[in-house]
Amino acid sequence: MARSSASSIRRYVPLLDWGRTYDRNALADDLVAAVVVTIMLIPQSLAYALLAGLPAQMGIYASIAPIILYAVFGTSRALAVGPVAVVSLMTAAAVGQIAEPGTDQYIAAALTLAFLSGGFLLLLGVFRLGFLANFLSHPVIAGFITASGIIIAASQIKHVLGIEASGHNLFELLVSIAQSLSQVNVFTAAIGLTVTAFLFWVRRGLKPLLMRIGFGPRMSDVIAKAGPVAAVVLSTLAVWAFGLADRGVATVGGVPQSLPPLTLPSFSPQLWGELTAAAVLISVIGFVESVSVAQTLAAKRRQRIDPDQELIGLGAANIGAAFSGGYPVTGGFARSVVNFDAGARTPAAGAYTAVGLAIAALFLTPLIFFLPKATLGATIIVAVLSLVDFSILPKAWKYSKADFAAVCTTVLITLGLGVELGVTAGVLISILIHLYRTSRPHTAIVGRVPGTEHYRNVLRHDVITDRRILTLRVDESLYFANARYLEDRIYDEATQRPDLEHVVLMCPAVNEIDMSALESLEAINERLNDTGVTFNLSEIKGPVMDRLERSHFLEQLTGRVFLSQHQAMRALAGDASDDSAADMIVLPAKNPQGK
Amino acid sequence: MARSSASSIRRYVPLLDWGRTYDRNALADDLVAAVVVTIMLIPQSLAYALLAGLPAQMGIYASIAPIILYAVFGTSRALAVGPVAVVSLMTAAAVGQIAEPGTDQYIAAALTLAFLSGGFLLLLGVFRLGFLANFLSHPVIAGFITASGIIIAASQIKHVLGIEASGHNLFELLVSIAQSLSQVNVFTAAIGLTVTAFLFWVRRGLKPLLMRIGFGPRMSDVIAKAGPVAAVVLSTLAVWAFGLADRGVATVGGVPQSLPPLTLPSFSPQLWGELTAAAVLISVIGFVESVSVAQTLAAKRRQRIDPDQELIGLGAANIGAAFSGGYPVTGGFARSVVNFDAGARTPAAGAYTAVGLAIAALFLTPLIFFLPKATLGATIIVAVLSLVDFSILPKAWKYSKADFAAVCTTVLITLGLGVELGVTAGVLISILIHLYRTSRPHTAIVGRVPGTEHYRNVLRHDVITDRRILTLRVDESLYFANARYLEDRIYDEATQRPDLEHVVLMCPAVNEIDMSALESLEAINERLNDTGVTFNLSEIKGPVMDRLERSHFLEQLTGRVFLSQHQAMRALAGDASDDSAADMIVLPAKNPQGK
Repeated sequence: MARSSASSIRRYVPLLDWGRTYDRNALADDLVAAVVVTIMLIPQSLAYALLAGLPAQMGIYASIAPIILYAVFGTSRALAVGPVAVVSLMTAAAVGQIAEPGTDQYIAAALTLAFLSGGFLLLLGVFRLGFLANFLSHPVIAGFITASGIIIAASQIKHVLGIEASGHNLFELLVSIAQSLSQVNVFTAAIGLTVTAFLFWVRRGLKPLLMRIGFGPRMSDVIAKAGPVAAVVLSTLAVWAFGLADRGVATVGGVPQSLPPLTLPSFSPQLWGELTAAAVLISVIGFVESVSVAQTLAAKRRQRIDPDQELIGLGAANIGAAFSGGYPVTGGFARSVVNFDAGARTPAAGAYTAVGLAIAALFLTPLIFFLPKATLGATIIVAVLSLVDFSILPKAWKYSKADFAAVCTTVLITLGLGVELGVTAGVLISILIHLYRTSRPHTAIVGRVPGTEHYRNVLRHDVITDRRILTLRVDESLYFANARYLEDRIYDEATQRPDLEHVVLMCPAVNEIDMSALESLEAINERLNDTGVTFNLSEIKGPVMDRLERSHFLEQLTGRVFLSQHQAMRALAGDASDDSAADMIVLPAKNPQGK
Repeated sequence: MARSSASSIRRYVPLLDWGRTYDRNALADDLVAAVVVTIMLIPQSLAYALLAGLPAQMGIYASIAPIILYAVFGTSRALAVGPVAVVSLMTAAAVGQIAEPGTDQYIAAALTLAFLSGGFLLLLGVFRLGFLANFLSHPVIAGFITASGIIIAASQIKHVLGIEASGHNLFELLVSIAQSLSQVNVFTAAIGLTVTAFLFWVRRGLKPLLMRIGFGPRMSDVIAKAGPVAAVVLSTLAVWAFGLADRGVATVGGVPQSLPPLTLPSFSPQLWGELTAAAVLISVIGFVESVSVAQTLAAKRRQRIDPDQELIGLGAANIGAAFSGGYPVTGGFARSVVNFDAGARTPAAGAYTAVGLAIAALFLTPLIFFLPKATLGATIIVAVLSLVDFSILPKAWKYSKADFAAVCTTVLITLGLGVELGVTAGVLISILIHLYRTSRPHTAIVGRVPGTEHYRNVLRHDVITDRRILTLRVDESLYFANARYLEDRIYDEATQRPDLEHVVLMCPAVNEIDMSALESLEAINERLNDTGVTFNLSEIKGPVMDRLERSHFLEQLTGRVFLSQHQAMRALAGDASDDSAADMIVLPAKNPQGK
């Protein structure tokens, strides 16, 4: 009893598993990784808070408690949890509909959003509903991330140029930017554009350069990753030294010097009602992003993650964010890869990162008073443009027009109507396309390949058929979306054949017959019977047969169930006539009878 | 050119097809059917208008123009279009949210609902989107019809007892009836309960009685069908003769004596916005009911209906209703069966019925001044209780728990929260259950049956496996909802096998690989490669292979694609070791390794 309850605690608290074998080597590796990640996270966290429309310090707070809670409850050993670009954008979109950025209501709504999102993730995890995230198809995610990256980049142009601009979609945003171009602040633009160019160069050109002048590849990588920190330091110094804040360069300004504060989400039912849909979307998107990162990293070390436990880890992280001055968080791609590459071996690395960030929140915040928002905007632009990848479009076009339609819908609606509608439309269209495709399954009228016991499509092969027997092979499970199509198909074929005596449905690819399909089979049986035709089945799979035996269908069936199609043909041709061979005709390929 | 345009007109106007061969015999049969149906339709139409909260004559008007338009554009030869119970209830639910019954706004909203519903059906028909109706699974429809029948019957109790009662769901309605029981009008209740008992007896006992006293079965049937007419005549006479209208018996009262008036639906965008969702639901439910009736009847004579053309026929009928004082209509089960049994051979029978109803509207309406509403309520109760059929519940429970869940949800939500939410919830839950089921497809680790080239599930058979090779057979098409599950499954198995060198995915039941699944296969390939394991495929179907060849997957594949599983095993076992036979082990059935 005690043992089983201990193992059930361990199931929900993976820390108890890896914690027991933690040693000095793992500690050293984790500490190194934590230092690297902390340096990278400081500017990134400030920037994403800006993107979410929140005070800069909330980005740091959102990385501290969540990272520790994820370390306790999460299963990935390298995932780094905190603010990420897409979730920050979605937070801004959701909270922006309720309150003005900069107000207390705005902050309260962001905390509440994190709380609801965490609660929803926890619920999904406890009920093991992680599979719901599968309804986001890969092309839809790819399209959504690309479109979000474009919107995020566009939303930061105003910070880089020092202008006012706003809009509910990409089009409005770009028009608003174009109209404000005359008000560009030259000092801001100089900093913003320089930093942007610098960061692009760091990303593309610095590492090869360092390696050419003799640094090792690992060291070059670490230095290149510190590029954004250099940009932050240099641009802050420039603003301070030249007094640019007085010349209209917007800076982060005063940030309270403190550990994450204890905050409370709102429990107003009205606010909950307004935020629930957004919380669900943010949770699902965040979960999908996080799980794919975690899976990629785990697979590299032949480790496993448990998606349902990940839900609990991310849920705890978000609830932690709600109570510690943060906003919705998830496992980020960039920071996790850095963590992994820097050698993090256990989730403890995340906890050390949290300590590093707490120290930063306590002691470094006065130093960023003069940090220009243009630098943060440039950091975001360079980070998200790496998410923008239109190669999904030609790839989808070539592989499948249906997937192409889903990507295009997602991209266009995300750009034109916003992130929430975009991802909802993407999910709906994927499901509709799937249902549409399976609602018209591939079917083939089959006949016997001469000299064999194989039955193949009459359109593709020269096969022998019998005009009294129609055999239809259906290459899909039978369920509500295609049940009626099957009826139509059989009646169509049956009405064209005046000599018809038997219909055989060949089911080698039918993995499931749901109740709608069962009723369609009953209807087919009955209606064929009204016209004096028997209805038979062949090659039904074991589990499907088990289920059919629990219904009354087999008792009502006018024909029989045959183990193989060849048995069916021999028995039915024999039933129909003693001289069956004479009735057999060889159909040429592409016979019009088969349509 | 001329010929193709003529055939394209014929496609949209089936009248041009059957009209050319119409002869005197068909005319005679159709006329007989029309008389029988007209007699049955008069009380039914009045009653359904009452159910919809509309003036009684609108039920008659709703049968005239629609029946003629359906005769021109519809494909079923026996379908009788007009007001039906469920659609009348849905009309009352939708319109009741916008206006008070008895007001002009209420009538205008009902006309507009018919117009929107007709427009939606036409759109679906022109774009050949009839398959959308397939998303209503059979158990959901059965549950919805049963729950609607209960609500309709409960809603008529007030008319039968002569009390006031209302409620937005079954519970409220029953409470309201219970609270008003003290106000029962004894005269109304006497008529209502007598008629109800009489009609039940007519339905159950009259036909056998008539046959016992010497009438032929056909004649007995016709007399029994006229039972409601007798109830209408007798109860009207009773009210008139005993002056019961002055004693509180509610009657139909003055009804304008006219042909259907020319009416106009509203074109107010606000009203359209409020009614669109209801119009969509009514269209879909009406279409599903109508098509299943039409298909059943057509199959009995080896005729065919075209569901997409049916959409156009029903769309035209509803638009006709909107312009001629009607409300949403569809093909009704009871009236169509009567029409068919009475011998209707072409849609012209419907047109003659329309003429009969027009004559009734012109000359018979004064006679129904004293027709008690209690009689109409009783007619509805007896008609709809035949729709109530709980046998779907045990049947679904036995056959499939998932379908059972869908039925229960639909029934409970329809009863508790109303018809519109009920059917929406039913559709959503069917789709969710389908996605859930296919998101965890049946998979099996397979091994070779000794002495054969067959590969079967290690859990069910004593088979030979190789610890360096893992073969997983997946029994479902691969698409977004199960792509991640497949990844999980393969990584789970792979991490348990330290000696693993090759993974083979056996795909004989895979009818489709969508782009999400393709990317999952790419991820599996890459992640297995990270751990030094090759990824191979076997027994891929032709169309699936065609599609894979359009991607870069096959170039990246670390392993190979094998035509058969046996080829795969021979090649991979040979690759791995020259002494492969020594590595083969015979697993017992139910081996825990396979889970």
